[in-house]
Amino acid sequence: MKDRFLVIMAGGRGERFWPQSRLRRPKHLLPIVGKKPMLTQTVERADGVVPLNNIFIITNREQRDAVIEAVPGLPAENVVAEPVGRDTAAAVGLASTLVKMRNPDAVFGLLPADHVIHGEKEFRKILGKAFDAAEKDSVLVTIGIEPTAPATGYGYIQLAESDADETVFRVKRFVEKPDLETAKSYLESGDYFWNAGMFIWQVKAIEQAFADHAPEICSGISEIESGLVAGKSLNAVLEEVYPKIQRISIDYAVMEKAANVVMVKATFDWDDVGSWPAVARHFPADQAGNVTRGDVLLEGGTGNIVVSEGEHLIAAVGVDDLIIIHTKDATLICRKDQAEEIKKVVTKIGDEKKWQHLL
Amino acid sequence: MKDRFLVIMAGGRGERFWPQSRLRRPKHLLPIVGKKPMLTQTVERADGVVPLNNIFIITNREQRDAVIEAVPGLPAENVVAEPVGRDTAAAVGLASTLVKMRNPDAVFGLLPADHVIHGEKEFRKILGKAFDAAEKDSVLVTIGIEPTAPATGYGYIQLAESDADETVFRVKRFVEKPDLETAKSYLESGDYFWNAGMFIWQVKAIEQAFADHAPEICSGISEIESGLVAGKSLNAVLEEVYPKIQRISIDYAVMEKAANVVMVKATFDWDDVGSWPAVARHFPADQAGNVTRGDVLLEGGTGNIVVSEGEHLIAAVGVDDLIIIHTKDATLICRKDQAEEIKKVVTKIGDEKKWQHLL
Repeated sequence: MKDRFLVIMAGGRGERFWPQSRLRRPKHLLPIVGKKPMLTQTVERADGVVPLNNIFIITNREQRDAVIEAVPGLPAENVVAEPVGRDTAAAVGLASTLVKMRNPDAVFGLLPADHVIHGEKEFRKILGKAFDAAEKDSVLVTIGIEPTAPATGYGYIQLAESDADETVFRVKRFVEKPDLETAKSYLESGDYFWNAGMFIWQVKAIEQAFADHAPEICSGISEIESGLVAGKSLNAVLEEVYPKIQRISIDYAVMEKAANVVMVKATFDWDDVGSWPAVARHFPADQAGNVTRGDVLLEGGTGNIVVSEGEHLIAAVGVDDLIIIHTKDATLICRKDQAEEIKKVVTKIGDEKKWQHLL
Repeated sequence: MKDRFLVIMAGGRGERFWPQSRLRRPKHLLPIVGKKPMLTQTVERADGVVPLNNIFIITNREQRDAVIEAVPGLPAENVVAEPVGRDTAAAVGLASTLVKMRNPDAVFGLLPADHVIHGEKEFRKILGKAFDAAEKDSVLVTIGIEPTAPATGYGYIQLAESDADETVFRVKRFVEKPDLETAKSYLESGDYFWNAGMFIWQVKAIEQAFADHAPEICSGISEIESGLVAGKSLNAVLEEVYPKIQRISIDYAVMEKAANVVMVKATFDWDDVGSWPAVARHFPADQAGNVTRGDVLLEGGTGNIVVSEGEHLIAAVGVDDLIIIHTKDATLICRKDQAEEIKKVVTKIGDEKKWQHLL
């Protein structure tokens, strides 16, 4: 068996869950669902698949200290901060380089830090299968999620029409987030799966894919590697090279173009909980469909999500379908169907230079 | 000219403006509209009509210290705390006794502590006219407000059909809060005025009115008086007598029954600002009809009233017609058309023994 690694992508900016999440305390550092931070749960979920020493976490400078704190036992040098965000292709290139410096023959998996997964045993089984598939062949392996709704917020993975192997499916194509009509047709067809951003491959396979489909990214990665080989510090190299790397997603740069992609079907429960309404689905609601956490008093009203941190009382009277989030220095009141607008608020707060409410 | 006194009724429980108002900091102790507490404004508004030494304030025990603090220069012994609330008839009886102990031939006015009045000069002129009328005759004088809408939240004063005096009008009757249809007919008729709870009369006139229409109240008052005459302390007497006095309003006990009532028309702007929506009318709104105070960020939404105390940021996204009030330990989110329900919330908080959010 080849040496196995995991690289966890923990670079969120904490916008969608503001004000509870912040630049220094984004979703993956919060127990949004469950008792521990999402990142801690993600690392613990991989227990037994790879040793802790073989887990890297890619984050940003603002969050690095908190990330180290959230994963006790993980060597601090395994937590790498991007000097600037350059989208996922650059991060995958960085991940590949980090693993390659340990073992150029290794195989590694990429996992998002902040998803909710129920069924740890199943998860480890599927991840193991994905590793097996990647190890055996120079393929790009992804774990696909069986869709339960015509979601427009995910990219989709279309399987090849027929396939011999019942565990590992050949992928026909990766497609970007569809509109609702297209999503409905995907759901009906039965051969589309959600792209959850989970990838497993050999260092050599992803290097080849970058060389074939994204030569610009490839040269950036090479520059990082040669800097490290020349004895420069990782931080110094990233500081120099990273800002120059093209800003592009791994899906767009590689996955939509590569022909050697295979998929393992997830048999565990998965949710990327990308918004407050999604989070609320993981908590029990009262008879009127209200989900509350903390010190909350409701007088009438239905379908609300109300979270109060600390000893602060939130009293809501006759309001429906609101997201109400109270934190020490800021409170959000947002219509549930406008959760996407929370990012705008965060931008406005930045524009008004009220940094204290973002950090 | 007879000796003139004012008694200001400052006994609110701070329910309708919770969480900004509290049991120890009700509306009259807050600058709900204007820069000073409403009570302070009420006292300052009477400047020149009666000397400060002749102003009494009737409040409750929880608020007495804060009341003394809110009115610098007023002798502390002029601030009297009811041991328990017994509605307005008892308070008027107490007021009458307080004034009588100073001068049984005096005339005194009763004013609510927490109304908004614009036009101080006009107010003083009208109050002066009311004092003149009360001094001249053994009548019960009230100041009536010309109605601007078919309000169902006030009692009304109907004038007698014809009247010779153009300043002081004979009152046909006091009527309780009407339903909307009745209120509309009052507004159309032109001879109904709002009862704003402002009364002016001689000690002797109100004593006679109690004797004629509310003998039970009358005997309670006599008991207070004889206790004081016997040298007991005011607190001791009130502690003993007050809880036994009938709980009834002055309107119901006296004003609706008395025949010798006259009215002076208010020529100043008056608003009892009994709720958050009423308060909001005194502040400039943005183009979408939103009124904000403090650190507030709105993303869309119309007709909201948003108040944030301290350095706390309130961000509201896409919400309409809400009252959002943030204080240090509690935040209210309430539909504007359900402002009456705020009292229920206060009751519930009491029921749940979360006293810290009420004090």
